[in-house]
Amino acid sequence: MTRAYNFSAGPATLPEAVLRQAQAELLEWNGVGASIVEISHRSAEFIEVAAQAESDLRTLLAIPDDYAVMFLAGGATTQQALLALNFAAPGQIADYIVSGHWGQTAIKQVRHYVTANVAASSEAGGFTDLPAREHWRLSEGAAYVHITANETIHGVEFRNTPDTGEVPLFADFSSSIASEPVDVSRYGLIYAGAQKNLGPVGVSVVIVRRDLLQREGQPRADIFDYRSHVARDSMLNTPPTWNWYLAGLVFKWMLAEGGVEEFARRNAAKSALVYQAIDDSGGFYRNEVAAAARSRMNIPFFLADDTLTARFVSQSREAGLLALKGHKAVGGIRASLYNAMPVAGAQALVDFMRDFQQRHG
Amino acid sequence: MTRAYNFSAGPATLPEAVLRQAQAELLEWNGVGASIVEISHRSAEFIEVAAQAESDLRTLLAIPDDYAVMFLAGGATTQQALLALNFAAPGQIADYIVSGHWGQTAIKQVRHYVTANVAASSEAGGFTDLPAREHWRLSEGAAYVHITANETIHGVEFRNTPDTGEVPLFADFSSSIASEPVDVSRYGLIYAGAQKNLGPVGVSVVIVRRDLLQREGQPRADIFDYRSHVARDSMLNTPPTWNWYLAGLVFKWMLAEGGVEEFARRNAAKSALVYQAIDDSGGFYRNEVAAAARSRMNIPFFLADDTLTARFVSQSREAGLLALKGHKAVGGIRASLYNAMPVAGAQALVDFMRDFQQRHG
Repeated sequence: MTRAYNFSAGPATLPEAVLRQAQAELLEWNGVGASIVEISHRSAEFIEVAAQAESDLRTLLAIPDDYAVMFLAGGATTQQALLALNFAAPGQIADYIVSGHWGQTAIKQVRHYVTANVAASSEAGGFTDLPAREHWRLSEGAAYVHITANETIHGVEFRNTPDTGEVPLFADFSSSIASEPVDVSRYGLIYAGAQKNLGPVGVSVVIVRRDLLQREGQPRADIFDYRSHVARDSMLNTPPTWNWYLAGLVFKWMLAEGGVEEFARRNAAKSALVYQAIDDSGGFYRNEVAAAARSRMNIPFFLADDTLTARFVSQSREAGLLALKGHKAVGGIRASLYNAMPVAGAQALVDFMRDFQQRHG
Repeated sequence: MTRAYNFSAGPATLPEAVLRQAQAELLEWNGVGASIVEISHRSAEFIEVAAQAESDLRTLLAIPDDYAVMFLAGGATTQQALLALNFAAPGQIADYIVSGHWGQTAIKQVRHYVTANVAASSEAGGFTDLPAREHWRLSEGAAYVHITANETIHGVEFRNTPDTGEVPLFADFSSSIASEPVDVSRYGLIYAGAQKNLGPVGVSVVIVRRDLLQREGQPRADIFDYRSHVARDSMLNTPPTWNWYLAGLVFKWMLAEGGVEEFARRNAAKSALVYQAIDDSGGFYRNEVAAAARSRMNIPFFLADDTLTARFVSQSREAGLLALKGHKAVGGIRASLYNAMPVAGAQALVDFMRDFQQRHG
């Protein structure tokens, strides 16, 4: 088999050009006589790779200078715990807006550290919509308000940045960062595991308004202190160098392709293709998310006849469309359409969906 | 330049055969139509890679069944904090034996969580020896005793496992794991960042006696709870899949080469070559570590005429011997001789050292 269209929710498809460059350089990088996997993070060569990656990410997302950027080992779940440790006093209230599975896990990480208030939730409706802003019950004196910008499992996405007044807005952007322009200045903190739009798993990006770093937070190990990471340019300890490097290659690729404005266009086109195929299927396929909250990144959908789901998954795989099985929490089918998925991939999926319906409808 | 002998202390040299396999598979792995960097950690294919890596590590290190093995994102520093959170009650005494820089950082991570007692330290002697066991002042009721099995900067290594009675011994084996046989049953917990002997940076291995997981520890996020990681086979969240995979390839390579017994022989031979060259230099080169405590993995040494140090570094680099500059905390030269460094590499270093001395002595 050669490379197929990979709809995995994360780890996810990467630009082939990036993989080809990483492949060519894997034994010997940049004339240094060793692989980039093998050189010191404190070498001048790697420090330049790291700084260039940060600079390119700042360009891509138009990150203002009064925001620090960290590249940290591990995933978004660790950051969920660190948010509370770094920015809330022990037991202080923090408001959480729950629009799906990942909003729930965010709360799970902080229950020993803060009083997590579910200020709004769409759980009663099966996470098929966003909690309407006018019904949020925000707390006075909250440390922050947390949202999940895009819910990877439930396919629900904030299409506008909610206003939270003086309380800083913290957002898990793991599955939608860099998919379209975002006004970073509207957020106190943005965090994202890299493994959807930014590169490989094993590194996370945290973008934080610098004044928030003055908060005392609560007692914590130095390695859990964002201030220490910022002060040492994310090299407090040995960072995941290859993962950081690969993310940097993805940033370069995104810039060369036209930046987030171009990916916003492609992502709108790709998701429109798939939603259209679902909505035009006369009920053969079904997506349950309210139109205004539909994710451009992850499209969960169901077959009216669920006994066909397994066949859809196996036949699509044979047709070169990988990893379309839905998350076990909701079942059905899920198509993830991150930046590295070309429009042709979405078109191939839609063609398969129509063909499958003709054969089984 | 082609691949040179790389004496970096970590990230460090990897077996070329492993890099070649990873390179060949980087675009499309195992017939799945995607790179291993791009597939789900929950796919049957990746779960098999993960399980095989654990199984191979168990074989390599003869890990008893009553020990759990975790593969966790990030480095050893994070584990240093988690030790206290998972195995000590708030404020409980934990004993630390400090034989170098990394023993000190281990304490830095836990000061908010435990009462860290420096039960012994060789700092007064400039970390040129191990604190003699008979002078350790262990605490009654300590949660654990912590040692650094090998000090990467100071070049001091425990050549025997100290006895700590009923109190479990926890050891940072980051820079010497799998370099020789070790009796795991003598330890309560062994942890190691992978980037020296096990593979790439970005993943750590934790080996823990299962009964210790019953300790309540202290309030912590789920992502900081070893019990949760063990219960989910280190897939509590998305693990660093490529890093784990690459470590697995290194394990296979080590087994094929003859296992840790064979590496013990090679490491003894390599380090003997370099120490001999130092000791035979008539004082031109100097290693200050007591003979019985000398590290086989990291050999720091100094030139009697320190004005020659920069020339040694630049000329050795031109001769295809990389990353010999000493750590900034101690200066001089440092040669790291991990498993993936062939005996021929140590011989090339020794040849260069003798030649350099002839030209400058």
